[in-house]
Amino acid sequence: MEKNSLIILSGGMDSVTLLHDKKEEIALAVTFDYGSNHAAREIEMAKENCRMLNIEHLVIPLGFMHEYFRSSLLDGADAIPEGRYDSDNMSSTVVPFRNGIMLAIAAGIAESRGLRRIMIANHGGDHTIYPDCRKSFIQAMNEAVKEGSGMKVELKAPYTEITKSDIAAIGKRLGIDYSKTYSCYKGGEKHCGKCGTCIERKEAMRDAGIADPTQYEA
Amino acid sequence: MEKNSLIILSGGMDSVTLLHDKKEEIALAVTFDYGSNHAAREIEMAKENCRMLNIEHLVIPLGFMHEYFRSSLLDGADAIPEGRYDSDNMSSTVVPFRNGIMLAIAAGIAESRGLRRIMIANHGGDHTIYPDCRKSFIQAMNEAVKEGSGMKVELKAPYTEITKSDIAAIGKRLGIDYSKTYSCYKGGEKHCGKCGTCIERKEAMRDAGIADPTQYEA
Repeated sequence: MEKNSLIILSGGMDSVTLLHDKKEEIALAVTFDYGSNHAAREIEMAKENCRMLNIEHLVIPLGFMHEYFRSSLLDGADAIPEGRYDSDNMSSTVVPFRNGIMLAIAAGIAESRGLRRIMIANHGGDHTIYPDCRKSFIQAMNEAVKEGSGMKVELKAPYTEITKSDIAAIGKRLGIDYSKTYSCYKGGEKHCGKCGTCIERKEAMRDAGIADPTQYEA
Repeated sequence: MEKNSLIILSGGMDSVTLLHDKKEEIALAVTFDYGSNHAAREIEMAKENCRMLNIEHLVIPLGFMHEYFRSSLLDGADAIPEGRYDSDNMSSTVVPFRNGIMLAIAAGIAESRGLRRIMIANHGGDHTIYPDCRKSFIQAMNEAVKEGSGMKVELKAPYTEITKSDIAAIGKRLGIDYSKTYSCYKGGEKHCGKCGTCIERKEAMRDAGIADPTQYEA
């Protein structure tokens, strides 16, 4: 398998699973620091998984997003809603066009490095509230990346139509240590256990039959 | 006319013409500082035109492009080729997926501000060497922006099929002072007069019958 792919790696369960799942194809992992509450802990986890797999890792700072974008994800832990991950509750956490921005920068880096493919770990559960996680967006962005790079770079999002529980099942098969991932939108030392992403994390591991190694508050 | 558009404004002839051309629709101008040789002088010109038209102006720093992208445009004045603006000569100045990156960030800012439209001044003369200036890219990126923003933002590139000389003719009609624009890829105090963009600038003004106000070296 040729190592000709770049992965967008947050350090959460989904992208860490994709990193291990496609490690033979991945030449470079890129983490975007857009100033979210949970950035520091996620980046630490992204780094650790890359070290483990001996994959080169870059962190790209996007501080302007914190300054100019409107999202509770960028407004401090107290702004993050608690409870289940559904439209009413979590829509304030949308960071406008976040995946589009990450994919566009990834396309430029891939082309600069002669890499042919960008991978992203958006999944089926994200779709209802985040338009830039949907299949229709991924398809349109793939066309834009191909056209804008002179057909040199393509986009792969293999988890677009599966759920986070399905992803956890892949992780179980691969023996991934999920204590080396971070999900909580509040960004504390321990996972809060109450925000939408924490609840989703717990449920995915339970559905996949994984003993959850996460340390939750209280 | 409702002021509901964001413009990507470099400070060169093309985007400054579009700024004046569509000033009734433009609520916000955004300049991206990606560390090119000519960034400082272009940004100064972008600021001055916005001040003149009383349009809000942001500068978004993208320093990582200088660090991780391969392009002679980011490698200092000596790396810039001299002579006419054709494929063989100028292809080293391509910054991979540059327009895709600027448009993606602009889409996020537009959505954050409740603006409905992003404008960019790519034109017909750019097409052969820059894939991300072609109509097929603009169309694909418009789809990606619409899908990824939940149909809230659209992309307009009204100069895609006209030449730089046509743009200069619009500027002549509008009475734009082109001494308040900067084009040279070498980024010196005066325009070099020898690089592809300088030659194109001279030719466009000559074709449009404008007395060129630019101070060239030698």
